[in-house]
Amino acid sequence: MSSAPAVHAWAATVGKKEGEGPLARTFDTVSEDSFFGEKTWEKAESAMVKATFQTLLRKSGLASGDIGLIFAGDLLNQCVGSSFGIRDTLVPYFGVYGACSTMAETLALAAMTVDGGWAETAAALTSSHFCSAERQYRMPLEYGGQRPPTSQWTVTGCGALAVTRDGPGPYVTHVTPGRIIDAGIKDANNMGAAMAPAAHDTMKAHFAALSSSPRDYDLMVTGDLGAVGASILRDLFGMDGVDLGSKYNDCGLMIFDRKGQDVHSGGSGCGCSAAVLCGYILDGMRQGRWRRVLFTATGALLSPTTTLQGESIPSVACSVELRAERS
Amino acid sequence: MSSAPAVHAWAATVGKKEGEGPLARTFDTVSEDSFFGEKTWEKAESAMVKATFQTLLRKSGLASGDIGLIFAGDLLNQCVGSSFGIRDTLVPYFGVYGACSTMAETLALAAMTVDGGWAETAAALTSSHFCSAERQYRMPLEYGGQRPPTSQWTVTGCGALAVTRDGPGPYVTHVTPGRIIDAGIKDANNMGAAMAPAAHDTMKAHFAALSSSPRDYDLMVTGDLGAVGASILRDLFGMDGVDLGSKYNDCGLMIFDRKGQDVHSGGSGCGCSAAVLCGYILDGMRQGRWRRVLFTATGALLSPTTTLQGESIPSVACSVELRAERS
Repeated sequence: MSSAPAVHAWAATVGKKEGEGPLARTFDTVSEDSFFGEKTWEKAESAMVKATFQTLLRKSGLASGDIGLIFAGDLLNQCVGSSFGIRDTLVPYFGVYGACSTMAETLALAAMTVDGGWAETAAALTSSHFCSAERQYRMPLEYGGQRPPTSQWTVTGCGALAVTRDGPGPYVTHVTPGRIIDAGIKDANNMGAAMAPAAHDTMKAHFAALSSSPRDYDLMVTGDLGAVGASILRDLFGMDGVDLGSKYNDCGLMIFDRKGQDVHSGGSGCGCSAAVLCGYILDGMRQGRWRRVLFTATGALLSPTTTLQGESIPSVACSVELRAERS
Repeated sequence: MSSAPAVHAWAATVGKKEGEGPLARTFDTVSEDSFFGEKTWEKAESAMVKATFQTLLRKSGLASGDIGLIFAGDLLNQCVGSSFGIRDTLVPYFGVYGACSTMAETLALAAMTVDGGWAETAAALTSSHFCSAERQYRMPLEYGGQRPPTSQWTVTGCGALAVTRDGPGPYVTHVTPGRIIDAGIKDANNMGAAMAPAAHDTMKAHFAALSSSPRDYDLMVTGDLGAVGASILRDLFGMDGVDLGSKYNDCGLMIFDRKGQDVHSGGSGCGCSAAVLCGYILDGMRQGRWRRVLFTATGALLSPTTTLQGESIPSVACSVELRAERS
């Protein structure tokens, strides 16, 4: 980015289970009601989106009309979590579909929009809801099917942020959009393995473009590879002779207590990396905890139909570099 | 746009029915095989996407590696038409979901990417397939359900284009992303009525931003309001005291012969405006037929689930202004 736009404000909402996890205190709102006052899971997700956007406005001091463009997306068919959630805001809208990579993609696009001078302020928003995702991708909730150890738990959560030309930061200094990588994995219950090669490809491209290495970062997070995928990512970099080291973590491993919360390989869903970014990470950067952070969100671009048709899982990752100071 | 990036090259592929319509000669490829050599409709759509991208490379003289970023999207759940269609290209990818507004949104984002200096070349691609859309949104094809007169026929088609910093044009001079407008229409068989208010809102904003009026354009097209929506759009502008006049048309009315092809209110689907733009319109501009064109693609942001849950249809439109000369 030539101007390194500022992440001016952010907000996160999560569900009850996420509010019982280790990052509980970093979220603006923890809802005890999975339905968010609505009658269906899909309407619940949109209500969560709407509430998070309102929290963002309150925290940022911005009015809806101050936001020139919002990039938003979610896991639901036709991205209806986002479109119904923000339909009353009257903010110009582009829908983005990147599965769990959506938070990085929407943040990248919002930063590009401000950097390019098309809007003074642009927003990015992403959500997922365990119940709406579970019944769309897997089984009716009532079925109570058993989950294999490689599976991840879709986070009920939403993250939103506003990017402005000036502000206290952190600042978006570099973006690396990723290529689709399909490593041939066909097990829809092992998305970490499917996505790790995409994270590797994009992060490697990012390091190369900046002549940087893992040692240069105070924090590198992926979202959401889970335990299986994060381990594969370490191995892939290991084969390059690169040690990701102790500064690397995965949002899916951070948001839940894997021992106590029965989430198998960890958290997933667009809302996982969104809520971790729009709370723990951005809060920590503003508080001076980390100065240079690499945020890489990863998405598995499958659908239930493609899985039924025997397809493998194409995956994508997008890296966004955040810095506490502009240079 | 500060630099007015050039639409360097474009390509369109359509199905048999579209190849029997009035724009037949403007498409690069008309496929006689609805399956595009594949065994399922979804794989067929991805095969069409892949073939169209290859045609774009051939026509543009570009290699895959020359394209810095591709924005693509379609109607299928999780946008799998696009992600599976371009997974082998290794071009960095952002998925966009804007329903039938996707061609304008992806073109806008590609132009912003080049104008902002993030890539020398960016691509935009959008598709739809009658058979994959019909069974996802409505009924199994074999059911042969009757269609109401307000319904539109989803185009089997794909359009792709490459935007570059320099080139012979046409040039993208202005973009107006639209707000979500929900006029309360609940009939999923009357999407023209649902989308017309969004087209009106965005076009009005575009005219206001440029201090322009319909008289200033050689061609204004929407995609895809069909007969019902296009008539409502004329009425909405009429209430503002603005006559859209004879230079206005709708891609859904242009791609089929409504009298002879039994498509009721006209064509629809992301591929409709994409194929009309990436053939008839861009060809005509390069040939000198029109100098100033306003392309406004419109999307109905519903899903089958939201319709079953009694929701109305939020809609969005995005306007892109194309000019034969830079200024």
